[in-house]
Parts: sequence; C-alpha cells; structure tokens
Amino acid sequence: MIQIGVIGAGSCDEELRRTAEETGSEIARNGSVLVCGGLGGVMEASAAGAKKEGGTTVGVLPGDSRESANPYIDIAIVTEMGHARNVIIARSADVLIAIGGEYGTLSEIAHSLKMGKTVVTLESKWEIEGTIKANSPQKAVRIAIDSFNK
Amino acid sequence: MIQIGVIGAGSCDEELRRTAEETGSEIARNGSVLVCGGLGGVMEASAAGAKKEGGTTVGVLPGDSRESANPYIDIAIVTEMGHARNVIIARSADVLIAIGGEYGTLSEIAHSLKMGKTVVTLESKWEIEGTIKANSPQKAVRIAIDSFNK
Amino acid sequence: MIQIGVIGAGSCDEELRRTAEETGSEIARNGSVLVCGGLGGVMEASAAGAKKEGGTTVGVLPGDSRESANPYIDIAIVTEMGHARNVIIARSADVLIAIGGEYGTLSEIAHSLKMGKTVVTLESKWEIEGTIKANSPQKAVRIAIDSFNK
Amino acid sequence: MIQIGVIGAGSCDEELRRTAEETGSEIARNGSVLVCGGLGGVMEASAAGAKKEGGTTVGVLPGDSRESANPYIDIAIVTEMGHARNVIIARSADVLIAIGGEYGTLSEIAHSLKMGKTVVTLESKWEIEGTIKANSPQKAVRIAIDSFNK
Repeated sequence: MIQIGVIGAGSCDEELRRTAEETGSEIARNGSVLVCGGLGGVMEASAAGAKKEGGTTVGVLPGDSRESANPYIDIAIVTEMGHARNVIIARSADVLIAIGGEYGTLSEIAHSLKMGKTVVTLESKWEIEGTIKANSPQKAVRIAIDSFNK
Repeated sequence: MIQIGVIGAGSCDEELRRTAEETGSEIARNGSVLVCGGLGGVMEASAAGAKKEGGTTVGVLPGDSRESANPYIDIAIVTEMGHARNVIIARSADVLIAIGGEYGTLSEIAHSLKMGKTVVTLESKWEIEGTIKANSPQKAVRIAIDSFNK
Repeated sequence: MIQIGVIGAGSCDEELRRTAEETGSEIARNGSVLVCGGLGGVMEASAAGAKKEGGTTVGVLPGDSRESANPYIDIAIVTEMGHARNVIIARSADVLIAIGGEYGTLSEIAHSLKMGKTVVTLESKWEIEGTIKANSPQKAVRIAIDSFNK
Repeated sequence: MIQIGVIGAGSCDEELRRTAEETGSEIARNGSVLVCGGLGGVMEASAAGAKKEGGTTVGVLPGDSRESANPYIDIAIVTEMGHARNVIIARSADVLIAIGGEYGTLSEIAHSLKMGKTVVTLESKWEIEGTIKANSPQKAVRIAIDSFNK
C-alpha cells in the first residue's frame, strides 16, 4: 500500500484544518496509508479525516511516549528524536503532501526533495522549486498517487 | 491496541524461526500489533506468523528504502538510522519479546530495560537481570500482555 | 567557546569554495570552533580555512565510518544517521552560516530557524524569511558572533 | 588522533569516580581525544581527568541544549536524540572503555561489539562475551590504544 506523508504545523486555523481533514479522508478513500507527525493541528486533522473513512494512520512522534499521539493515530512510532523525526517521515512516505506549514514543514519539504520524493503543496507559504502546487485535497492526493504509480 | 516488539537476529536456525513465527501468530490472535525490525530471520518469521493470523505488522527499518522490508510488513518505517533504529523499536513497543539474538538484540534489551519496559525472553543466550524468561511463545505473549494491563 | 555551524553543499564551484575557506579562516581567527558536515565541497573548504588559521574543526558525518571525513576534520562525529545528522549540526551550533547550498542546506536552515537560532546566509539561493544576508565572510562571522553575545 | 569512548552511568560512587577520572587523565596523557556522553557521574569524572592533563573532551549529549554538558566538555554535540545518542558514541569512538555502568552502558557495550569495536571494561558488572577486562585505568587505556594500532 502507498504510504502518503501529510506534513504541516502543530497548530492551524479552521481553514487549514478543513483542508487537512479532507486530505486525510481522500487518502483513506484511495486505500493509502497516512503517515504524519502524530501531534495536533494539521497532523491531527488529517488523521481524523482518514479515520472517518476507515483508513490507517501512522504517527511518527518526536517525544518519548505514545501518550502524546492524537486520538486518531492507529500505529504510534515513538522516536524520542525531536526534529530528526521529520527525516523519518520523509523517508517513510512514498510521496508527501505539505499543508500550510512553518519552518518545521519547510525542513520536511527540503529533506523530501533532497531524497528525490514528490512533494505536493496545499495552501503553502513556501514556494520551493521542485514542489507541485495543488488547489484542492482531491487534486493533491491524485497527483501524489499518480506520481507514485508513474 | 498494544504494540508488542519482537526482537531477534536477522538470521536464525529453523527452531528459532518456528518460535518466532508462533510468537507472531500469538500476538495477532491476541489482537496486538507486531513491531519489529522489518528485515529477515526472527523479524521475518514473526511477521509471517502475524500475517497468517490476520494481524498488523510494523517494520522499523535501519536503511533508507522500503525495498529492504520483508514481504510480511504492512507498515514500513524507514529510519535511515542504522543501529539507532533499535532505540525506536524499544520506545515504540509497549512491551518486548526477545527471541534468541546476538549483540543487536542485547542492545535492544538494554535500551528497553533502561526505559523501564518489560522484556520477555525466549530461547535467549542473554541472561540479563530484569528480563523475564518464558518457555513458550504462548506464555511469552501472555506475560507481555499481562504486564501491560497491570 | 562558540560553536559556529557552516552548512553548504557537498560539491561547489571555485567561488563558493573561496567563500567557504575564508569563512572557516575567519571563524578560527575569532577563536570559535567550526562545526560542519565533515564531507566535501563547502564543508571541506571551510574546514581547510579553519585549519590554516589553527582553528578546531568538528565534522558531523552522515555515514558509519570516520574514513569519510575530509582531511581537515579534527573531531569526527560518526552518526550513521544520514540526513538526520543535519538536525545534530543545527542543534550543536550556537549560530549558523549557510553558504550557497541546495535542498540539504535548506533543510538545515529550516531546522535551525525552527530551533530559534540565528542563520546568516552567504551567496545563498534560498531567500527564507528569518535568515540574515551577509555580503562577505568577515561580515557573516561578525554577525554570527554578535548575535550569540547579545 | 584516536578517539576513545568512555561510557558509564550518570551517577556513581567515589571509587568509580576515581577510576573514571584516572582513565580520562591517562587518555589525555596518551594524546587521545575523550568521547563521552557529556553528563554527570562517570562521564563528568573522566572529562575532568582529561582536562587536568590538558586533553580534548567531546560530549555527545542526549538533550536539546549545550547547557546540560558538564563543565569539562570542550566540544558539545547536541543530538536531541535521547538514548540513540549512545549509538553515536559507539560509532564515533575508535575503541571504548566501559566503567561500571547500568543498562545504558550495557546498550552501548552491545552496540559497540555489534559494530566490531574493541570494548575494554573496568569494574563492570556486565560480563559480556567479547569484552576485555582490565584491572586498572592505565591497562585499560593501553589495551584500547594497542587494539587500535594493531
């Protein structure tokens, strides 16, 4: 099964939250596994969306305990590695969708591009050469899956 | 769901293989998730056992690609972190079962005990203070689950 | 002693090489320790510059052996962690200077900013909000040291 | 220069402290670099011993800040990786000396042996096949350096 990484900030406004949730739902409807950072904000909203559609969610946590995972995470990977967990998300995802996001998301975009992975952006403030901009969750997931099957 | 770590060497003889497979099956029959290192030997046998019973398997890989996962892994966590991935397995598992094993397994036992986790051993050459010896896969899984529910 | 991180690509043209070397020399003349990724390109040039002035150099290597360090590295930290070593450089540096650079450097800039560190750029293609642009190695090191002493 | 890792618990009694300090001094007298975990106990005592003889000390810290380093550390490597920093110490050391030690030290011994490194023990409670027992700091450092030059 394709593992799609969803990356984004740990807190976000209502609009980004809806975008993230819809992205998670679309990933689940396509039978893909959602891999995210396991905490709040975009991570929680996307996981909630995936669970609503019966999907599978993986949270790659920065801390040292499962307790920090949001309630929509099925599989908790406890890294105890702080920011370095971003590298694990980038490596574990076959393709990534970045939603909004601050510096942490930027680091993840950069790691993913460096690894040669496709990175689709949704409502991102970062205009980084090599990413692909999508204007809806549906299109983002479509581009992600197509890039993997190519 | 309880995440049970199964640790052991990347190559093993037929007897350990059977023990590992039966342990994986028992974990799945108990509705727990199997977390392992995702490669061959004990890791592969335990994952194969879990899949035979319809369980869920997670492989925390040391390399930089999903390709290295054995065919029984559902969720591949690609760490690109070599031996440090042992720490992630220890952290992510609620409780661990060590089967046979060489120095790599010993490092994982030590990390797990240091983190205060229960470590059950099966046919282990390491007699480390703090581990609990079991004489069958069924008993190992029973001890593991009971320790978690305590 | 202040630990100044110098980040940049593993291969670079002659102009960047001179900039990196001069930056390393300036760091050494100011009595600071140079922390870099330990490989070629900007990393090697900056370490060579620091050694020319009798400085101390630390290389945080991505691979699993000291052999990969360039010849100007005094202290080799062997992480065996691939891209995650970028996070260690960002954490270990009190302040960072980014010279030129591709996606790997961008990830390091992003991690550093996320950690609240000062990032000075020299001849960088990345115009990331929050970084400080310098137009010479001398000014870059001056800004770096001043930001730390503030 | 040879990088000798000294591993041991973060708190220790007066006797182990003296052993660790004398080991650090002997490492410095032999012109080698001391690599340790940078915190208290055996780590602090060995670093203090090395500094007394004008040696160079490296602390590979588990946390996210240099502040946690003991006062005898010259070069602070801030990993933000918790227990996984033990793997970095094992990788970065050309040879290791384990002094006393609990589970954390055991994990480091196991990682080092797995990597094929020489591990010398001093007053260790762990009798692990493959380690070499020494009965004085001087002999431990001698064995360490000889094993490297072989």
